[in-house]
Amino acid sequence: MTIDYDKLINWKFEDIEQTYTSKDTILYALGVGLSMDPLDMDQLRFTYEEDLLALPTMAVVLAYPGFFLKQPEFGVDWVKVLHGEQGIEIHKPLPAEGTVVGTTKITEIIDKGEGKGALMYSTREVREKSSGDLLATLSSTTFCRGDGGFGGPKVEAPKPHELPDRAPDSVVELPTLPQAALIYRLSGDFNPLHADPRVATNAGFKAPILHGLGTLGVAGHALVKQACGYDPAKLKALRLRFSSPVYPGETIVTEMWHDGDVTSFRCRVKERDIVVLNNGYAKIA
Amino acid sequence: MTIDYDKLINWKFEDIEQTYTSKDTILYALGVGLSMDPLDMDQLRFTYEEDLLALPTMAVVLAYPGFFLKQPEFGVDWVKVLHGEQGIEIHKPLPAEGTVVGTTKITEIIDKGEGKGALMYSTREVREKSSGDLLATLSSTTFCRGDGGFGGPKVEAPKPHELPDRAPDSVVELPTLPQAALIYRLSGDFNPLHADPRVATNAGFKAPILHGLGTLGVAGHALVKQACGYDPAKLKALRLRFSSPVYPGETIVTEMWHDGDVTSFRCRVKERDIVVLNNGYAKIA
Repeated sequence: MTIDYDKLINWKFEDIEQTYTSKDTILYALGVGLSMDPLDMDQLRFTYEEDLLALPTMAVVLAYPGFFLKQPEFGVDWVKVLHGEQGIEIHKPLPAEGTVVGTTKITEIIDKGEGKGALMYSTREVREKSSGDLLATLSSTTFCRGDGGFGGPKVEAPKPHELPDRAPDSVVELPTLPQAALIYRLSGDFNPLHADPRVATNAGFKAPILHGLGTLGVAGHALVKQACGYDPAKLKALRLRFSSPVYPGETIVTEMWHDGDVTSFRCRVKERDIVVLNNGYAKIA
Repeated sequence: MTIDYDKLINWKFEDIEQTYTSKDTILYALGVGLSMDPLDMDQLRFTYEEDLLALPTMAVVLAYPGFFLKQPEFGVDWVKVLHGEQGIEIHKPLPAEGTVVGTTKITEIIDKGEGKGALMYSTREVREKSSGDLLATLSSTTFCRGDGGFGGPKVEAPKPHELPDRAPDSVVELPTLPQAALIYRLSGDFNPLHADPRVATNAGFKAPILHGLGTLGVAGHALVKQACGYDPAKLKALRLRFSSPVYPGETIVTEMWHDGDVTSFRCRVKERDIVVLNNGYAKIA
């Protein structure tokens, strides 16, 4: 099985249209761990329909085209792919409800060489249907571990954001629920790896793991809380690298470095002292 | 304001049709506290779409006509009404997804006399649309505290189920999540009393309270676990009286007495040692 570079890089994805309601917006926020304290009025803005706000990271579940790499014609060894990096640029605050249209494209595939895998870069633009306004641009890096040496470009991969070499300026600790993955998946990613202990065991995990994008949502919450004073409109961009999975029920410790309008960050699991999200970059208004 | 007895007792409710999906069924189960342990395969049957089962108590959220007593023409002092009792008879196990039709009627209104309020009895039959089969009959008693002395029938109210006069045969302890009410309300009861601390304070509570029917769902879980070995088809009927509210995050202790095919039960909040559901009756196949 070899990656069909020309087919992938030129693939015309169909636009995805999605209508979401305030209930979906609340469900997303509950899935990433709000409101652990039902009296916290800041968090309630995201989990109660009165004056509801959408978390900026919800963009990742909007107009999602599904796991398209599974299509046999692409020639990707999809069982071996990993979500490597994720970026979100927010151009306009996400409405609490509405209809959006997502346009996906593959922008580059780097060949790391035989046995070393390939890196696939894709973007998704999410627009508000009524106004046509661009709401968010999502960028994903997929590490295709089984697909090196397909004869594609061998350019250098972009360097990840470097964290400052000093102690963090602030730290936010957020618990996750044991049923976090079961709630999060109702926002649209029904991969059984996040629910079925049998599937998780077969994949080499002791239990179902939290969605990487679910952990990203927890990091986004930490940023909105600490760097934005719970004003989600202040979070303009976010990029990070996935480094290790989280088990639902674990506590996510987000370490932050604030330098002007840039907040650098990484996330650890408190219980196992392992970095799970790394090289985090956030642009704060 | 006086209850219009003839209007209420003869009111023709419009049938309510509702289509629900496996996602709704899972969301209901998460709202009543499953799966606190994501490795518990018994509970996962209710929170994961593979071979999904519906909790029998989900009937209470199906084809719900809304808070109809608010309609001014009924003359009910609706601000003062309390949900007093709830019964569920299951005629056929609820499908994990489907379309149902609910038919509501008011069956009796007892006048307890001036200053003593009134008791309104209503039923809802929930049928599977495709087969026409009756799935569940729901019975509610509403205590209209401000509506006594309206000139209605003064018959004796039916006696609640009496609990055995011995120590419980079994006890099941189930935690609730701090965000339990926020999850539960996504199943359709958006009363702000269960989400908004300001509304809760105005109503005399220190915090938003859990839906009475949410607590009933926790009791139903305890019964399905302890008396039915997690086979929901064994729970044929359930009746109880609401006696005190629960705050999300509290632990529900269900005490059970097993006598043949009848399990009597009541629920306490562990943290405050208060009975919250009383006079519980369950019929087990």
